[in-house]
Formats: sequence, structure tokens, C-alpha cells
Amino acid sequence: MTPDPAPAIILVRPQLGMNIGMVARAMANFGLDDLRLVNPRDGWPNPDAGPAAAGADGVLDSVRVYDSVDAALHDCRLSFATTMILKGLPKPVATPRHAVASIRAARVKAGILFGPEAAGMSKDDMAAVQTLITIPASADFASLNLAQAVLTLAYEWGTAAGDAPALRDVPDPPAPHAELAELVAQLVEALERAGYFHIADRRPTSERAIAAMLAKAGWSSQQVRTMRGIVRALSEARAARQRTT
Amino acid sequence: MTPDPAPAIILVRPQLGMNIGMVARAMANFGLDDLRLVNPRDGWPNPDAGPAAAGADGVLDSVRVYDSVDAALHDCRLSFATTMILKGLPKPVATPRHAVASIRAARVKAGILFGPEAAGMSKDDMAAVQTLITIPASADFASLNLAQAVLTLAYEWGTAAGDAPALRDVPDPPAPHAELAELVAQLVEALERAGYFHIADRRPTSERAIAAMLAKAGWSSQQVRTMRGIVRALSEARAARQRTT
Repeated sequence: MTPDPAPAIILVRPQLGMNIGMVARAMANFGLDDLRLVNPRDGWPNPDAGPAAAGADGVLDSVRVYDSVDAALHDCRLSFATTMILKGLPKPVATPRHAVASIRAARVKAGILFGPEAAGMSKDDMAAVQTLITIPASADFASLNLAQAVLTLAYEWGTAAGDAPALRDVPDPPAPHAELAELVAQLVEALERAGYFHIADRRPTSERAIAAMLAKAGWSSQQVRTMRGIVRALSEARAARQRTT
Repeated sequence: MTPDPAPAIILVRPQLGMNIGMVARAMANFGLDDLRLVNPRDGWPNPDAGPAAAGADGVLDSVRVYDSVDAALHDCRLSFATTMILKGLPKPVATPRHAVASIRAARVKAGILFGPEAAGMSKDDMAAVQTLITIPASADFASLNLAQAVLTLAYEWGTAAGDAPALRDVPDPPAPHAELAELVAQLVEALERAGYFHIADRRPTSERAIAAMLAKAGWSSQQVRTMRGIVRALSEARAARQRTT
């Protein structure tokens, strides 16, 4: 089975080389490698891109430059443009998550357009695409940095992949209950010797609270041993004192 | 109904003012406003932050600076650290999406630590937190720009806003971090007096293990108070014994 083709990230008239580099880094972080530029303001290559890419050289080396949005989208069967301006554009609108889901489901080449830093996409640029993507940012402060906008799509692409790294639930499983019960018994005994249960009526409640607290902790066998050592250190220091008197 | 408290974004020893500004912008894009700095390399305020914030001045104006991770987490009941290094750290691990879902569900104040640009978080920094967050980046190129790492959390926070779980009380939320830190300090002091740290070389490791164990427990304020009473009872009994001899 061939892997899903990764979508092309297409920067339309990008201005700053640093931003192009940061886009490359964000793409590489989540397994995207097809970066295309439409009429970059300062030409290509751009010496400011490399440092900002922070090692994502593979993405930068394979950048392709086009002189129109149509040309950049030539091989894409699905086409998207990210925008904050939805008025007057009779097109379907998706979130980054929905857009990525539709690309993953279709298993075809897609292209996602991002406008220039200052102005965003023009309506002409957006006319060519099938679907708009709007990033669900705060209404009060909706303007994302270019590389940050790309990251939302790259991140959704990466997290939607079946091969995301497996996650550990709890790396160190809780100790068998018997070990926990021994800790509780040891602690209760030490507390008894220290005069902690001076109000007899409350003792059952106190013991229950201690057992509940230690059960909640979810400690591993190693951690239960550490806590037993702590209780021993505190109470044996006392016992040692008692023996010497 | 009060809104969910937004998590604090806590940058540990951040290096570049530009990155702090970009973090502020990423936060404002998705409705986060609580930015905290632990020992920023170049002090604070930093003239490079403003331009990179691109208008997110409200976030920058309310930045608070701390001299330790514990202090920065003082009022947080849930604590997280983002890291790529999972080896040797016996803590639960979540994705950004899972972490945000757990914060939304708990409806309590959370703090999320991000390490410095070059080195990432130290093990000491991470000992204090309950849960690690790993961003599911490509194994080949996993190092995210600081602001990009923050964006993944901010973006999940923003996109989860629509489908927050229905209101439910969490009966016993974890204590604010300051209370936990006081318990750790009290226990370490009591252990020192009891001669627990007799091998000087191992002391940092032991202290880290104790902090990690108590952070993992997720105890409520009441439970932290109970444990403080237990430590006090054990060590005061010892002290009283010493006085009578």
C-alpha cells in the first residue's frame, strides 16, 4: 500500500525568508516535505530561510517556485486556501482538522494555499480553490504568523497519521495492592508510636483517610519502597534515639 | 457560570525575546493570556518581544516573572511539562489534545512548562509536574520552535472550546502547586534531620524522586494537609524524644 501523498504547502507571494524557513521547519516537524512558492517577494533561494529552518534542509532543497497559483496547484486534486475573510466567497469552509480529514480520506494529492504575511490571500487567489480553510482563532486576535498558520495544518496532518508515536499510559504501573497495604500498615504503626491517633474516636476515619490517600497516589513498586524507606528513616531515627536513652 | 480558567504558559529559562513575543502572539490567537517566565536569560522586559508579539500587547503587559519552577506553578492544580525526553521519567504522558481535554474536564487552573530553546527541560524542572506532554512530531525531525510548541497547546485549547464537556464538579481537585512544594520542602527537611541523605552524591536524585512521587499523587489540599501532619507527627515525636534525653 502506498502511503497517502502528503499535501503541498503553497506560499503565495511570501515576503520574509525567515518565515519561509520557519514554514519548512514546521512542515518537517510533522512529516510534510512538498513546499511550493508562488512569486516570492525576494526571489529564491533566500539566505534568510536556512537559519530559520533549523535543519529542515531537505524541505528547502526541494522547494519549487511558480509564477501563478494555478501553476503551483497543477497536480493537486484537492485545493484549499487558508483565509480569515469568508465574506462574499461562495465556497465550502473547513477547519484545519476537517480539511486534513478530507485529504486523508480521499488519498489524493492536495494543495493548501497560504497568503502573504501582511495582506493575506486575494480573492483572485482564492477563486481557484475548492474549499476555504479558516483557523478557529480568537475573534479578538485572529492574525496568525505565517509559519504558525502552516503549523496548524501540519500538526493536524501529523496527528491524523496512523503512525503517530505510541503513547504510554502510565509508564510505571501501580504496585500490587499487597505492597500498598504493607506501606499503609507500616505508616499507621509508626504514627501510633508517635502519638498521632490521640483522639481514639477519630482513629478509624484517620486510618481510612490515610489508606485512601496512598491508594490515590498510584505509586509504583519502586515508589512504594521509597516511601517505606522514608517512613522508616523518620521513625527509626526516633527509635534509635529511644534505644540510646 | 464562570468560564474555565485558561492554563498558564510557563517558559523556563527562555533565551530569545523574539520567541517570547511569538509565544505571546500564539497565545492571544487562541484566547490564552497568562504567560509566566522562569529566569529569562536576558531579563524582563525584553525589547525584542514587542515586535514579535505583533499586537499581543495584553499578554506581554501581564507577564509575571519567577525565580523557580515551583514558584511559577504555585496556584496550578494541574501541572504539565512538554518534552521530547521520556526516558527515565516515570510519569504519565499525554498528547497536547489529551492534556487540553483533561484540563477542560477538571475546570481548574493548570500550568504548562516549556523548556529553553536549545536544551529543553531539565529533569529537575520536570520532577515537579504531574504529567508530561509530548507533541507527536516526526521522529526524524522532532525539535519544534518554542512558539510552535506553544501553538500546538494553544490551538488545542482554542479548538476544544466549542466541545467542552458539560459542567460537572470535580470533587477533589489537586492542591495548588505551592501547597505541594511546601510538603516536599517539609519532608526533605525532616529527612535531612533524620539522616536520610547520608550519601551526599545521591541527594539530588533522591530529592527529585521525592518531588516526582508527591507530584504524581495528585493529592487535594486536604490530603496534602494530612500528609504534612503525618510528617510533623513523625518528626516531632523524634524531636521530643531528643529533648527528653
